[in-house]
Amino acid sequence: MGEKLEQLKTHLYRPLDLNYAAAVLGWDQQVFMPPQGTEARANQLATLSGMAHEIFTSEKTARLLEAAEGEVAGLDYDSDEASLVRVTRRNFDLQTKIPTELVVRHSQATSKGFTAWQQARAASDYAQFQDNLAEIMDISRERAEYLGYVDHPYDALLNQFETGMKAAQVETLFTALKTGLAPLVQAIAAADPIDESFLEKREYDLERQWDFTMLLLRDMGYDFQRGRQDKAPHPFTTNFSSQDVRVTTRLIKNRPHSAFFSSLHEGGHALYEQGSPQKFDRTPLAGGATLGLHESQSRMWENQVGRSIPFWEHYFPIMRAFFPEQLADVAFEPFYRAINVVKPDLIRVEADEVTYNMHIFVRFELEKDLLTGALKVADVPEAWNAKYREYLGITPPDDAQGCLQDVHWSSGLVGYFPTYTLGNLIAAQLYAQAQQDLPGLEAGFARAEFAPLLNWTREKIHHHGTKFTAPELLQRELGQEISAQPLLDYLWARYGAIYHLK
Amino acid sequence: MGEKLEQLKTHLYRPLDLNYAAAVLGWDQQVFMPPQGTEARANQLATLSGMAHEIFTSEKTARLLEAAEGEVAGLDYDSDEASLVRVTRRNFDLQTKIPTELVVRHSQATSKGFTAWQQARAASDYAQFQDNLAEIMDISRERAEYLGYVDHPYDALLNQFETGMKAAQVETLFTALKTGLAPLVQAIAAADPIDESFLEKREYDLERQWDFTMLLLRDMGYDFQRGRQDKAPHPFTTNFSSQDVRVTTRLIKNRPHSAFFSSLHEGGHALYEQGSPQKFDRTPLAGGATLGLHESQSRMWENQVGRSIPFWEHYFPIMRAFFPEQLADVAFEPFYRAINVVKPDLIRVEADEVTYNMHIFVRFELEKDLLTGALKVADVPEAWNAKYREYLGITPPDDAQGCLQDVHWSSGLVGYFPTYTLGNLIAAQLYAQAQQDLPGLEAGFARAEFAPLLNWTREKIHHHGTKFTAPELLQRELGQEISAQPLLDYLWARYGAIYHLK
Repeated sequence: MGEKLEQLKTHLYRPLDLNYAAAVLGWDQQVFMPPQGTEARANQLATLSGMAHEIFTSEKTARLLEAAEGEVAGLDYDSDEASLVRVTRRNFDLQTKIPTELVVRHSQATSKGFTAWQQARAASDYAQFQDNLAEIMDISRERAEYLGYVDHPYDALLNQFETGMKAAQVETLFTALKTGLAPLVQAIAAADPIDESFLEKREYDLERQWDFTMLLLRDMGYDFQRGRQDKAPHPFTTNFSSQDVRVTTRLIKNRPHSAFFSSLHEGGHALYEQGSPQKFDRTPLAGGATLGLHESQSRMWENQVGRSIPFWEHYFPIMRAFFPEQLADVAFEPFYRAINVVKPDLIRVEADEVTYNMHIFVRFELEKDLLTGALKVADVPEAWNAKYREYLGITPPDDAQGCLQDVHWSSGLVGYFPTYTLGNLIAAQLYAQAQQDLPGLEAGFARAEFAPLLNWTREKIHHHGTKFTAPELLQRELGQEISAQPLLDYLWARYGAIYHLK
Repeated sequence: MGEKLEQLKTHLYRPLDLNYAAAVLGWDQQVFMPPQGTEARANQLATLSGMAHEIFTSEKTARLLEAAEGEVAGLDYDSDEASLVRVTRRNFDLQTKIPTELVVRHSQATSKGFTAWQQARAASDYAQFQDNLAEIMDISRERAEYLGYVDHPYDALLNQFETGMKAAQVETLFTALKTGLAPLVQAIAAADPIDESFLEKREYDLERQWDFTMLLLRDMGYDFQRGRQDKAPHPFTTNFSSQDVRVTTRLIKNRPHSAFFSSLHEGGHALYEQGSPQKFDRTPLAGGATLGLHESQSRMWENQVGRSIPFWEHYFPIMRAFFPEQLADVAFEPFYRAINVVKPDLIRVEADEVTYNMHIFVRFELEKDLLTGALKVADVPEAWNAKYREYLGITPPDDAQGCLQDVHWSSGLVGYFPTYTLGNLIAAQLYAQAQQDLPGLEAGFARAEFAPLLNWTREKIHHHGTKFTAPELLQRELGQEISAQPLLDYLWARYGAIYHLK
């Protein structure tokens, strides 16, 4: 590695370490922090992110980056050296557009916003969060202006999470997905309903649920020497290097499968981060590339793997052993169908995978209108409820089950939601390819053999770190563009079978 | 508050926030971090403390500090404004004396030293730590030279932890304490031994021990809205503001009283930090003044309160209810005597309060000789064992139970140990005064009424934050200098009764 590049790498230690430190503080805030710690934590996070931003966007970075660009000119696009400089340049150009003042204001607004949201949700009272959301939306609008866009301010925000993706492309993909899903949803609605009373009406001990989630994480290949699982009201994954990647889950007495799918989901995110090559640690190449790619990893484990028949051929007997009283009278097929019930639900994170994307459509459309001002912050609950009636045919009875359910806006994550559906699309594309590449893949699930899939994703996705964007990676590894058809094919096949559709 | 002072305060936000963030990372490291997280965490902590030091010792701090000094000249010594500037000046002058080069070398030596110490202790092999200790002692010697001293290099190091205290003063106090303790230790050795078999030979459920420690913390006035307790191999207290003050404890099956005293001890530290006025948050006036004062708070709750008869008149019945099988056949007096057994022990942190200070004398004397070179690093184990024979009449069978038992030296904390005994002395002085000021104080303990004592310490100690040094505070609130007699009086009275001495 050349001298200039080495200087750039060393210079980036500070902003990277500051951001990792902020991630530790953020993890603590969501998992363990006592209630009164909020204000000081907000200050600390603002200081860390402000300083990281200041150093990263400094003249010195500009100078070192330019020098390093000279040094790597002519190197292979795929090489670690050229990639490190390219990714740094992209982040630098993005970040330098945002003034530090806005970064600090954003951090403070979202720290306070998070607390306000928690209280508002507990009280199911949107009014307690409205002013915070208004402030966060104002900052998001400013941010979009600073970042710049050609077609729609949404493009500027989305690009932060999914490099190069535009609202118009998302809309095209979403339209294809909506069109293909509508007849499936209708067919399922017309089919015989599935009995899930043995889940809903029975209580599943929380400690045993916890043990089961730990077993799943171990089996899928999550490394507890380099991570841990805790409980959090809103499950998430975070990491402070490839050697410390943490997941969280949530346990509900009469929804054991909810915790299992949650741990598989977060475990999928974590495998991506644990699969980031150690040589990339403490560089901008470490970790997952885009949020859509990240979500493709979590979704593949949660859905393609975790909702498959062979998977439950292995785990259903174990689950019966964990919960003998609750499941003694339940046979495999009724069980398998019950955990895969398709039913419009008010809560996104509880949604089945057929209706899940409807929740995303709602948020994508509301966010776009909030950004342009076509929707006023005061009118969010009403607009939210109207969209739920339109897309899911149900009306939230209160704000806690409506527009207050997600943490994202309170954390300033506007333009983020579409990456969930993009992740679903990419997961289906990747999984279809993995099935072609790995004969007997699903048969192995019935023996809890997940290493072939993990190794496949390590090679195709994880070991590239942040080198490539989602379109680049799909082109390179699959020769494909992002498309809706593989997900539609997968959903029709799986739920056609579960609901005995023709 | 004047404009210049306001500018100084704002400038100090960053180094203070960086240090608080480092404290969060340190807490996580000791409580929850997975094993492989070590290397990245060391980098993150080095970045945070390096940046905090750089900003705090910068030209800008010097300039703002000087301007603020001009502004507060003539203000009352006790005022918040004058105190903030005075404390900042003191810290600034200390920190700027150390060149950044030494700070970095210190950080590297102690990072390596800590790992080497852990391995050496696990192998009980001093040779594996010897070179690291030699390096750390060299750096400590250099540090003392940079900091400057008149009489003894030890003064320079001690002053970092206990402002204004000198080795000669410590020696005088320690000599008085030794002289007064010797006949007490002899008398106890000659007395009938106390039966503690119902502790040592029975198992006390760890979850109930935990619940009991939580009850104690609640009763003493620890605010769980502004803190939490977790488990840690080596209990400690840390804080990230006055609104987030965390304690840890350690549970051992056949030593339930160990966990209770540990939680009372850490709870005492925590009450000090939670008692720091909120207006001082995010300023150098926040928190406890010196380590000796801090230890006086922890020790008072652990010993003067937690080892008193009235305290156990309240808690013994509760403890029997928590552990009915283990304590059904145990009456109050045998129980009370058993948890207060005096017995020379190899391990400082397991020592009773009569012999505890002997452990400190050993370390203080060795440290002084190591600094002057009168003792060679190679000869530490031999010298250590000789001192244990001299002061405690026992010989460590190996280095793990001898000179490798404490973390302090490996972390570069040389000159720190005396503050433990200073804390014991101050605790006794404060408590004697509290008894005079608060009639019926101990009778209240029998009803779990601790608010009078807590309020007294709030007023006398906590609400001053870091304004005053230990000698200043004792003079101001008690009209006393630090002295050994109150601790001797207290120990003779308490253990004379427990051991039925004449």
